[in-house]
Amino acid sequence: MIETSHPGNIGAAARAMKTMGLTRLYLVNPQDYPCVEATARAAGADDVLANAAICESLDEALVDCTLVMGTSARLRSQRWPILDPREAAGDFSQETSSGEEVALIFGTERTGLTNDEMTRCHKLINIPTNPDYSSLNVASAIQVLSYELRMHAVIQGDVAGVDSKKDVELAPAQNMEGFYEHLQSVLINIDFLNAENPGHLMPRLRRLYNRARPTLEEVNILRGILTATQKAQK
Amino acid sequence: MIETSHPGNIGAAARAMKTMGLTRLYLVNPQDYPCVEATARAAGADDVLANAAICESLDEALVDCTLVMGTSARLRSQRWPILDPREAAGDFSQETSSGEEVALIFGTERTGLTNDEMTRCHKLINIPTNPDYSSLNVASAIQVLSYELRMHAVIQGDVAGVDSKKDVELAPAQNMEGFYEHLQSVLINIDFLNAENPGHLMPRLRRLYNRARPTLEEVNILRGILTATQKAQK
Repeated sequence: MIETSHPGNIGAAARAMKTMGLTRLYLVNPQDYPCVEATARAAGADDVLANAAICESLDEALVDCTLVMGTSARLRSQRWPILDPREAAGDFSQETSSGEEVALIFGTERTGLTNDEMTRCHKLINIPTNPDYSSLNVASAIQVLSYELRMHAVIQGDVAGVDSKKDVELAPAQNMEGFYEHLQSVLINIDFLNAENPGHLMPRLRRLYNRARPTLEEVNILRGILTATQKAQK
Repeated sequence: MIETSHPGNIGAAARAMKTMGLTRLYLVNPQDYPCVEATARAAGADDVLANAAICESLDEALVDCTLVMGTSARLRSQRWPILDPREAAGDFSQETSSGEEVALIFGTERTGLTNDEMTRCHKLINIPTNPDYSSLNVASAIQVLSYELRMHAVIQGDVAGVDSKKDVELAPAQNMEGFYEHLQSVLINIDFLNAENPGHLMPRLRRLYNRARPTLEEVNILRGILTATQKAQK
């Protein structure tokens, strides 16, 4: 983060990074730091703040980096490749996996990166914003990019993410058939379904319950309700 | 946003939304609002704050919604489908493109959504975070999800002509609530549910039916079955 004005943004950035598993924060000439507001906004990420490197120039911060990217409001440029955050995460990951040092740089709150700072970048990242209001907070930009880096790692299988494999026991077809037979007989009993002229009711109910993919336990609850309905009949 | 404690988070959320082109903010019982801190953090998104709906209950906020998703730290669940933010953006976009009302709900800063609030959800969203520090700020979570919604729109714009318009009318939340009330009273009548000691039955049934995403017509069929059950009682 370069010449950040508001210490709250530094704290929020530390928190944003740590939630996504990043820890190495570099502060180039922060305007008001250290500051109690930074620590407050960092919440439990105060270790990231405590370990932040304070640098006197951008070049000092970037000294070991082989790939530098900065955010930009530009959608295209003749001078730099412009990536969206997802593409940028792919490039970063590729670089770090070969052991290289990489940096994402963020300019001041008011004006972003200067032209001189951009000349340190190999590529620029455009976060797609509302053209009528593109005023993304600097810590929010860091949140979005940190999130994309983590999503990339999740998809690559490097870290755990949502496991779509369900470990619940879905109701097998024979239990679903038992439920539908039971349901049909109750619907006939309570005069909701005419056995002589059933129409399309059962196929419709099948589609509804099949969409829910009930578990075995849920089908047992539904059958319990049907049995109670039969007992309560006059 | 439900019972948000810190007004700064409400302002930051308004700004996060507007940068990604979203405008409809609903505040359920905000703890300290309106507040100068909210306006300060909103920066140029004060119009989103000014137009925010203040609701006394979550159900009031969701009354017209056919798809409700909430964020959760869970990675898997027997009770709800768990999506990552990218998958969730796809689902949302599909729903809104067919003209439906959708909601993303966010719980308090300290504890997130309660179990009762989760029973209003059709699906849950897990933002992949660092397992050692998953304390994502609520406005940051809104930033990440708003960003994914915008990224989805950007990507869809590149593949013009996809029309996923559905010609079915999904049941709005108020019809679902009417059904659940009717179901509960029938379950009490037929002695399947003990009004004094209801246990977890209704939340389980809510999750089952919410997963199926019933159409308005299907909900009317289910209510017809309930009415016939009442008539057939001794």
